Amino acid sequence: MKPFPQLLAGLAAASLLLGAAQAEGPYRNPDNKNPKDVSEGTYPIPYKMPVAAEITDALHRIRAHMDAATPTRVINKKTGAPITDFGKPVADAVFEPSAGDYGIMVYEMGLVSSGLMQVAAATGDKSFTAMTERHYKFFGETLPYFRAQEKQFKLERNNSFARFLDPRSLDDAGSMCAALMRARHNKIGPDLSAMIASCGDWVANKQFRLTDGTLARKRPQAVSLWADDMYMGIPALAEMGRMTGERKYFDDAVNNVLNMSRYMFDAKEGIYTHGWHENLQDDAPKFYWARANGWAVLAMSDLLDVLPKDHPGYPKVLAQLRATLKGVAQRQSGAGLWHQMIDRNDSYLETSASAMFVYGIAHAINQGWISPTTYGSIAQAGWAGLSTKITAKGEIEGICVGTTLAGDQTYYYNRPTSVHALHGYGPTLMAGAEMLKLLKNPNVNIEYKVRTYHYQPKGSGATDYREHPKDHP
Amino acid sequence: MKPFPQLLAGLAAASLLLGAAQAEGPYRNPDNKNPKDVSEGTYPIPYKMPVAAEITDALHRIRAHMDAATPTRVINKKTGAPITDFGKPVADAVFEPSAGDYGIMVYEMGLVSSGLMQVAAATGDKSFTAMTERHYKFFGETLPYFRAQEKQFKLERNNSFARFLDPRSLDDAGSMCAALMRARHNKIGPDLSAMIASCGDWVANKQFRLTDGTLARKRPQAVSLWADDMYMGIPALAEMGRMTGERKYFDDAVNNVLNMSRYMFDAKEGIYTHGWHENLQDDAPKFYWARANGWAVLAMSDLLDVLPKDHPGYPKVLAQLRATLKGVAQRQSGAGLWHQMIDRNDSYLETSASAMFVYGIAHAINQGWISPTTYGSIAQAGWAGLSTKITAKGEIEGICVGTTLAGDQTYYYNRPTSVHALHGYGPTLMAGAEMLKLLKNPNVNIEYKVRTYHYQPKGSGATDYREHPKDHP
Amino acid sequence: MKPFPQLLAGLAAASLLLGAAQAEGPYRNPDNKNPKDVSEGTYPIPYKMPVAAEITDALHRIRAHMDAATPTRVINKKTGAPITDFGKPVADAVFEPSAGDYGIMVYEMGLVSSGLMQVAAATGDKSFTAMTERHYKFFGETLPYFRAQEKQFKLERNNSFARFLDPRSLDDAGSMCAALMRARHNKIGPDLSAMIASCGDWVANKQFRLTDGTLARKRPQAVSLWADDMYMGIPALAEMGRMTGERKYFDDAVNNVLNMSRYMFDAKEGIYTHGWHENLQDDAPKFYWARANGWAVLAMSDLLDVLPKDHPGYPKVLAQLRATLKGVAQRQSGAGLWHQMIDRNDSYLETSASAMFVYGIAHAINQGWISPTTYGSIAQAGWAGLSTKITAKGEIEGICVGTTLAGDQTYYYNRPTSVHALHGYGPTLMAGAEMLKLLKNPNVNIEYKVRTYHYQPKGSGATDYREHPKDHP
Repeated sequence: MKPFPQLLAGLAAASLLLGAAQAEGPYRNPDNKNPKDVSEGTYPIPYKMPVAAEITDALHRIRAHMDAATPTRVINKKTGAPITDFGKPVADAVFEPSAGDYGIMVYEMGLVSSGLMQVAAATGDKSFTAMTERHYKFFGETLPYFRAQEKQFKLERNNSFARFLDPRSLDDAGSMCAALMRARHNKIGPDLSAMIASCGDWVANKQFRLTDGTLARKRPQAVSLWADDMYMGIPALAEMGRMTGERKYFDDAVNNVLNMSRYMFDAKEGIYTHGWHENLQDDAPKFYWARANGWAVLAMSDLLDVLPKDHPGYPKVLAQLRATLKGVAQRQSGAGLWHQMIDRNDSYLETSASAMFVYGIAHAINQGWISPTTYGSIAQAGWAGLSTKITAKGEIEGICVGTTLAGDQTYYYNRPTSVHALHGYGPTLMAGAEMLKLLKNPNVNIEYKVRTYHYQPKGSGATDYREHPKDHP
Repeated sequence: MKPFPQLLAGLAAASLLLGAAQAEGPYRNPDNKNPKDVSEGTYPIPYKMPVAAEITDALHRIRAHMDAATPTRVINKKTGAPITDFGKPVADAVFEPSAGDYGIMVYEMGLVSSGLMQVAAATGDKSFTAMTERHYKFFGETLPYFRAQEKQFKLERNNSFARFLDPRSLDDAGSMCAALMRARHNKIGPDLSAMIASCGDWVANKQFRLTDGTLARKRPQAVSLWADDMYMGIPALAEMGRMTGERKYFDDAVNNVLNMSRYMFDAKEGIYTHGWHENLQDDAPKFYWARANGWAVLAMSDLLDVLPKDHPGYPKVLAQLRATLKGVAQRQSGAGLWHQMIDRNDSYLETSASAMFVYGIAHAINQGWISPTTYGSIAQAGWAGLSTKITAKGEIEGICVGTTLAGDQTYYYNRPTSVHALHGYGPTLMAGAEMLKLLKNPNVNIEYKVRTYHYQPKGSGATDYREHPKDHP
Repeated sequence: MKPFPQLLAGLAAASLLLGAAQAEGPYRNPDNKNPKDVSEGTYPIPYKMPVAAEITDALHRIRAHMDAATPTRVINKKTGAPITDFGKPVADAVFEPSAGDYGIMVYEMGLVSSGLMQVAAATGDKSFTAMTERHYKFFGETLPYFRAQEKQFKLERNNSFARFLDPRSLDDAGSMCAALMRARHNKIGPDLSAMIASCGDWVANKQFRLTDGTLARKRPQAVSLWADDMYMGIPALAEMGRMTGERKYFDDAVNNVLNMSRYMFDAKEGIYTHGWHENLQDDAPKFYWARANGWAVLAMSDLLDVLPKDHPGYPKVLAQLRATLKGVAQRQSGAGLWHQMIDRNDSYLETSASAMFVYGIAHAINQGWISPTTYGSIAQAGWAGLSTKITAKGEIEGICVGTTLAGDQTYYYNRPTSVHALHGYGPTLMAGAEMLKLLKNPNVNIEYKVRTYHYQPKGSGATDYREHPKDHP
């Protein structure tokens, strides 16, 4: 096989073996005011104190891009003509597709909505929730129309509203369900209790499960677990707990964290394998797909945000989140991001998982779940890496497209990335919001000393650099 | 040291740090019939459902290449003239060398013969055993001649038949001995019981051993174990057990699997270190050379093929094979192959070990020793990788040449590869044969869904994709 | 982010995935006298039997470079004019800076002096200690002058003699203190007991410590441990034990090895994390910076060199050194050197840590602490790698500059390297000295067989290659 010239392959292999000298990157740390400091290197990412205005600007770009890309209109899918008469359904009526194929009702958009609400809270800028308000208003207005369409034409999966008229999977229901309940809690958008009832019922009562209650799927094997389903199920259960005050939802959410972790968490490595099959032998090779770990982190984090502290599961979920964040943080790359296969440094750096980890780590610091001492600069380097993936027009690069539960590294290594993969948008918004909060966190002091950043818990005592020359950076 | 331009070294280092976007490979999966599917990537190897006709064609190319390259003639090594009068030995008589320096009596050719018999069994095509029949007929015809030559001229290692006239090592004896017994079992070629007696006696009775019976060598230290010797000894012992029905051979084979594993298997990593020395401290650095692991896998697999199921060692050997296959599978690269140092992703991808692993995994599935659920797509990706190494003329690329037991990574990383290294040919034939059997395995259902392959044990229940649109790949 | 052309990034990523064939390096082993041997590869480093004359030559180049670069004069820092009248201090008097910014009183120069003394001992060539003698004579002559300058002008850190007039850290005191005591022991230079008293008092009595006696710092957190401080403290304590015969110093040194290891040694991985903070959670991500491991190795090795064998801590320190050398050796790269982050093969190959490891391994073999069987060829490959970093003019490339205790991989991966970073010079001298001793070690037999090197303990029995052809390399 010679798809590439022998010469270049040889050179690349040789440079690996020879170990090139330290890399030269395009960024020099602007916090070091001595331009002649020979002990200052260059970086592949903007290694510096995060600047709130720059973060906010990046978040606005993403918001604007999302907003512009997601129309809320009904059209005739054959003619493209707008449909405004919602009195009489026609078979060809669909949601107008977005420019970038971003669905307004898909699970990934649930994260975008949740992320925008977090950015609004972190910045106080309500413009961040305007798009979600527009989407949800549109849902409220068109639900009766598409319900009537379905009754008359039986379009099933081709009905634009199918996920809420006839939910069939956690992907259909969970993430968006959690977002709808958060919007309701935050008084954003109209009353969508009919949608919440539909998706909530699916997650809580209708999704296929193991006999021990673990949320499961009938694919790709007859009985399979997906670590992704921690996010697809648990946040919705948690929000139902918050909304209704009924403990059974919290019990179910906690049970799923613990069960999923029992089946799929590798305690030695501190990370999750992507899936588990009932027909597996106990001791199978693992596939530590980064985004699956991201879903697990988000799910546990979201649950802890609303789980009563006196719930018996609270310390167990917290311990599991801490163990996961340790395993994840241990594997951060030198470019701040994480690899597609989190344990494989020859797989590409993947944006969506990286965003989930930056959020998970920064949020856990801000919530007091983990120490800023260890994790603060990891979050900061992670954001520096993420920031390079957000383009001037608000697109996000390097996001792995939708990925199924597979059984070989070749599949995972070679998943394409796309700015149209929505999976990374919500988490990047969440990561940015949390970085803004971290910069203002009154319990954390960020000291820039000797060319790097030291996150100190407030009240942990003074540091002392008196042996250094006075002009030491 | 600046053997390469600074620029390129810098770029290569930088691209590592920056984590290039996902790689673009030359192959797109032809099983995905939607050419516009943006969720389909490109691959460095032909990731697709294996096609039996393509596998068979590749195996025929290898067979034809081997056949053409291995003359069975005696010549005068000085003049090159053929010698056909076997009545009176001359000192300069030698086996005519092959074009590619492939020896017809070396241990690597034992694997080629065994592999060809397996391909013949898998395809029903007897042309695959024709070369072995020709070689063995030649052995039968020339043994008396070279025996007389030795008696008269004392050529020792320079006698073309030295390995069987005067075996001195497991490399001389074991692999070819197993092949001769398999041919005898399969009624291929003439009666070579004299050769079998010679090599069998060496393996069973004369090879240097530890006091606990473990097959050992007096190099490179005074008392050394080589994981390679699992293959150089155990299959021959196993075949002697099958041929004679005497349990002592099976006991010896089992004992060697367990002892070798005790000394050299790293249970934490699930892989073997290349060797062990009696004068070592307990806790020495390990060298996880891929081919040594391949030899271990083949040895255990070959033994289980003939070991009576009621032998007390059967479950132990099976457990050891399973543990090894798990460790091996865990380290498969994104290109389907395995690295020269199995735990080091900056060492090159090596073909012979990869072929041994593909065979070992596929065979273990077909024998019911491991689950298709976990291992099926690993074998498939492995074969896809291997297939890129088989050239149009039937040569196999990327095979590490003969390699001694060494003590530093620099040696192992920089072993050259050669199409003339015979070590990979037999295992590739075996891997192809087993893939053909896997494709026809009545206990395995291979489902192509969501752009990848799911190996389901027959009878494990139906999968369900009803939440997906109908035209989902 | 597109700092580099897309094309090259793609190629580099692809070559990783495709796994280029074995690398072609610029070196072919000259010990293999068969130029047509197809089983001999090429290497990225000069893989061959180390040649004593070449090592000695390299050490002389380093010595000469150091000697030429380090003037011993006092000058007026504003005018550059020499100051020779030491009767009346002036505020602008400073040590004349070296060309390469190598300080003559910094901790790194302590290692250079110690290394030069070791080279002199290994070669019998006293020219290696001439520079140290010159430096120390200068210290003796100028100490009263700079003491008077300080009294009059209160320059604090800007006084050239500050480290010994007013030591404030282990960096100021420990390494140079050990070197001064070694010089005293070896009768090199004048009586510098006043300097020894100052630095010894700091290390033994004044440095900030944990309540359990562990040497600590008030940075970057209020209470932090640095693995570097094993070297910055323990050798000085050990030398004070030797100089005074007082056991309390040995007790303190042993206690620090064991405590530091308890806090920072990862027993599972066999390597040290860079630091520990009192305000950390127990289970934090680790940063296995190579040079920190080098400091640990040197500290334990230096201690064992002078610690009485009947001290109760002796076997514990020896066990800890052995465990560390095993972990270190396990991670040697294919180019003989070690990576900046010792567990990360995508970080650059770093010279100073590599030199410390080569020294530590070779010295431990020579002292009989570890087996030549396992470690001999590792040291040899390491030296081969190091030798490529020593330029014709005696500079050493690839040395990571001074590096603080940080909390993210981005910082560590992107530390620049410099020939002006003195950290690697002393260790390279030490490594060369020890390789010379290894080549002459009467207890070790180095056998070149089958293209590689086998280090055999004397008396461990004969090897046997009788199955090989006579002309086998």
